[in-house]
Amino acid sequence: MTKLIFIGLGLFDGSDISYKGLKTLEKVDKIYAEFYTAKMAENALSKIESLIIKKIEILDRDEVENGELILSQALEKNVAFLCQGDPLTATTHIDLLLQAKQKNIEIQIIHSSSVVTAVPGLLGLQFYKFGRTTTLALPEGDYFPESPYDVILQNKKIGLHTLVLLDIQVNSNERRYMTANEAIELLLKISKKREDSTLNEKTLMCVVARAGSMNPAIAAGSAGELIKQDFGEPLHSLVVPGKLHFKEAEAIMILANAPKELVDELQ
Amino acid sequence: MTKLIFIGLGLFDGSDISYKGLKTLEKVDKIYAEFYTAKMAENALSKIESLIIKKIEILDRDEVENGELILSQALEKNVAFLCQGDPLTATTHIDLLLQAKQKNIEIQIIHSSSVVTAVPGLLGLQFYKFGRTTTLALPEGDYFPESPYDVILQNKKIGLHTLVLLDIQVNSNERRYMTANEAIELLLKISKKREDSTLNEKTLMCVVARAGSMNPAIAAGSAGELIKQDFGEPLHSLVVPGKLHFKEAEAIMILANAPKELVDELQ
Repeated sequence: MTKLIFIGLGLFDGSDISYKGLKTLEKVDKIYAEFYTAKMAENALSKIESLIIKKIEILDRDEVENGELILSQALEKNVAFLCQGDPLTATTHIDLLLQAKQKNIEIQIIHSSSVVTAVPGLLGLQFYKFGRTTTLALPEGDYFPESPYDVILQNKKIGLHTLVLLDIQVNSNERRYMTANEAIELLLKISKKREDSTLNEKTLMCVVARAGSMNPAIAAGSAGELIKQDFGEPLHSLVVPGKLHFKEAEAIMILANAPKELVDELQ
Repeated sequence: MTKLIFIGLGLFDGSDISYKGLKTLEKVDKIYAEFYTAKMAENALSKIESLIIKKIEILDRDEVENGELILSQALEKNVAFLCQGDPLTATTHIDLLLQAKQKNIEIQIIHSSSVVTAVPGLLGLQFYKFGRTTTLALPEGDYFPESPYDVILQNKKIGLHTLVLLDIQVNSNERRYMTANEAIELLLKISKKREDSTLNEKTLMCVVARAGSMNPAIAAGSAGELIKQDFGEPLHSLVVPGKLHFKEAEAIMILANAPKELVDELQ
């Protein structure tokens, strides 16, 4: 019986894949990668190709979403499907998994690292104090969904932190990654429009850029201060803290240079 | 300048570590592992030792918590500190990181896979529909903390799923891993004691055991049915779903054999 094996590439470059994932790639007959929503180091896939001495075929969005090519191949041979992060955090990948199950293709999942645990950890914030995660979308003209703001409010009201993931927009050949600066600007815009003061220029926020790389940016400060800083290359993520445990307070001061007066307000 | 490098072992066995982690282990001068809260395949560390042709020294709880040995070594040479999952999801590890920072020891984090994303993914549930995560503790005699029940209620009230991690108890030479069955029993006990019907024998729950292994158990059903099943070896995790998106409903029926009538109630 043939298999479809979902393998996570992890956070940042070609060496964040697990050893198990790499060894598995050496054994499969065909390797596809979903890379259109990914932002990894430029040479991530070619680095893996040189380690396993095999070619990886990059699929476009349609090919991943309709799944035909991958599934028809997986009915005949052992196929690996590579994607950034932990493989089943994206809905599209769960869809592909379900389609494969319905065709009685055997499935294996090889997990990997994800921003979801990496970002809280790099800031020294406790994972079990995070509420629901949200994604902020890039505005289309004047329009942008405000629901992430509601998620932050809901979490903050019960003292929880919010991990805010930032949109990646892929148009034909161009990609745009939302910066933490754009994200903060957008949140302040919503707060002004609603005349809601929960988030304002003095609110403590945290930024992590390039989690998983050798030089992640890890910063905390007022929204007004952070918006002026340059966090460098993508991907950026934002955290809006709720109540801080004293250990967390200590951690974001040491790890992210959070100003004491803002930290004290949240204790 | 010497370094202290935190390296995640990932979910299950010695090959869940990232390729970057493995290559880094080959270069460091000394390797310690925190294994007292871990449940990985028996030979996880010896497998890594044979890959890197080096010895790993396992530390006990005191040695990790006071940090002296690790930090004194890291002031003189490059030291790796290994632990299960993603390295900074445990508070003790953040403490160690802060102590190292205060001694001006250079830090590097090499991330890895975690139950936090693996369990939702294996069930086909969408990560951003999870609320706060909680950990259920093993009862000490008649006493057990009820706060996890409150977290589940709070999440369920706003339609969110709850990931319930299960306690590992380490007494001198013995370890006990809470099973999903014990966890469900405990939750039903709390619900009866409080005369609260939010969780009862008919509530849909999901169980994942041995995430990251070749044979994870993935099940969904009423609490009353699940409590009778045998999910095999640890670690077990529990998920109490909130509202189900139709894609999630489809997924847990296909991936976890959730009964349609219970799924329909949550849509």
